Amino acid sequence: MFNRVLIIGVGLIGSSIGMNLIRKKMAREVIGVGRNRVNLKEAIRRRAIHRSVQVQEVQSLLKEFTDKDLIILAVPVREILHYITLLSRLKKAPLVIDVGSTKLSIVKAARKKSLRFIGCHPIAGTEKSGAGAGEMGLFRGRQCILTPFGNSRDDIAKIRKFWSGLGSEVTLMDAGRHDRLLAVVSHLPHTAAYSLMRAVGKLISKREVFQFAFGGLRGTTRVAASSPEMWRDIFLENRGQILPALGCYIKELEALRDSISRRDSGRIHQFLKRAREDRLKFP
Amino acid sequence: MFNRVLIIGVGLIGSSIGMNLIRKKMAREVIGVGRNRVNLKEAIRRRAIHRSVQVQEVQSLLKEFTDKDLIILAVPVREILHYITLLSRLKKAPLVIDVGSTKLSIVKAARKKSLRFIGCHPIAGTEKSGAGAGEMGLFRGRQCILTPFGNSRDDIAKIRKFWSGLGSEVTLMDAGRHDRLLAVVSHLPHTAAYSLMRAVGKLISKREVFQFAFGGLRGTTRVAASSPEMWRDIFLENRGQILPALGCYIKELEALRDSISRRDSGRIHQFLKRAREDRLKFP
Repeated sequence: MFNRVLIIGVGLIGSSIGMNLIRKKMAREVIGVGRNRVNLKEAIRRRAIHRSVQVQEVQSLLKEFTDKDLIILAVPVREILHYITLLSRLKKAPLVIDVGSTKLSIVKAARKKSLRFIGCHPIAGTEKSGAGAGEMGLFRGRQCILTPFGNSRDDIAKIRKFWSGLGSEVTLMDAGRHDRLLAVVSHLPHTAAYSLMRAVGKLISKREVFQFAFGGLRGTTRVAASSPEMWRDIFLENRGQILPALGCYIKELEALRDSISRRDSGRIHQFLKRAREDRLKFP
Repeated sequence: MFNRVLIIGVGLIGSSIGMNLIRKKMAREVIGVGRNRVNLKEAIRRRAIHRSVQVQEVQSLLKEFTDKDLIILAVPVREILHYITLLSRLKKAPLVIDVGSTKLSIVKAARKKSLRFIGCHPIAGTEKSGAGAGEMGLFRGRQCILTPFGNSRDDIAKIRKFWSGLGSEVTLMDAGRHDRLLAVVSHLPHTAAYSLMRAVGKLISKREVFQFAFGGLRGTTRVAASSPEMWRDIFLENRGQILPALGCYIKELEALRDSISRRDSGRIHQFLKRAREDRLKFP
């Protein structure tokens, strides 16, 4: 059990963590930090945090933090980098984790600043944002990837236990491999969904979209409702992995377009058949 | 109530229609036609059809068909075109409908052959195929687009009633407009999903795909599990509408790629924000 947990960023992920910590008594006190007062109030109302502090008050609060406390960075990736700099100025060394969707640049920054830090990525979430979207079961049965680097066994064990307590299956992985993998299974599908929504909006009227959008378009674009700030940061931070993946995707689309254009029935069929075979293997 | 209904193609859509006709007593006898004997047996077992006939027996059976009967073409689009030719050789003129996902080439072919035909497109379905996937509620609350052309009021009313009986909301539309619209809200998302699955399969190992595929990839590629034969035909038949839509989609992906590559934070944010605004308006 932690003494105090400071959740910086009380959105979907931050508030879902807080709900678990309070209800499962995994922390004595859960404090939320954020800029949006309405959202912080909602987080308190839903018992995701006990109380909130303003961003400006964080530094003075952190001076009281000890080894029994935990700091969770649950803000968009680029803000995580900002907080890593801010936290590195602290005298004491509380344990810090993040929940960002990219890991290499974050882990590198934390190492550079000699922070006592473990990068975490709970592979959980919905397309919704804010404390109002938080839910107790968000991490249940989901993978959580940890990318420790030079951490003590004790700290790794602590953070493993933390995520297990939230119901996650913990996997340890090199930060670089994490970013390569996630670029493909998560970031690329998001670029696909956002771009599809943009294309559809340009091709037909909004009224037609909403009247005739059904299964196909609905599922394929669901994640395009995700937070633009969060995804802008992920695309920028992991661009080294995302750009080649996006290039590969565009090539596949062009290959399909060419086969359709040449009316190459056999090639179209092969293309669809192979894609289907892979998709059917999903657990 | 129809006397006999012949369902040519007892897949997901055909079997779901049959189940409704039998259970709601909308037809005295429902006969299924298909090549796959195992599938036909499954259709009988699930009471989607009363009995089945082989493809070769269809022509002799059809000679007995009268005005009180109905023929439903529930095969892939290119086979529909084949059956339209075959049916046009009949002396009597039973009413014929199809359930194909493209309409202009089908309606044109039926007109040319002077068939008593109404093009239908029930906007329903899942990524599953075969009689085993049929379900009673498949059409409930879903749109069904009819594209009549030169049909009698009486026949249109009959077919309206037919789809209402299955629980669908019926919309009448010009076949050309149908194909333009569906290219965007349905065919394009399918090209996106199939191509994404192909790209992912090339970028990382299958083992990694299946271990880390979660929300984003899962939803975005769900429809890539759809029947390759059915979708090959749709892509070929509606290529005139699909190719420009696909071109527009590739352009949007390239625009996003360029913004990421130039680290243009503002442009990325605008792109994602606009996509999200449209997506949030979905009913």
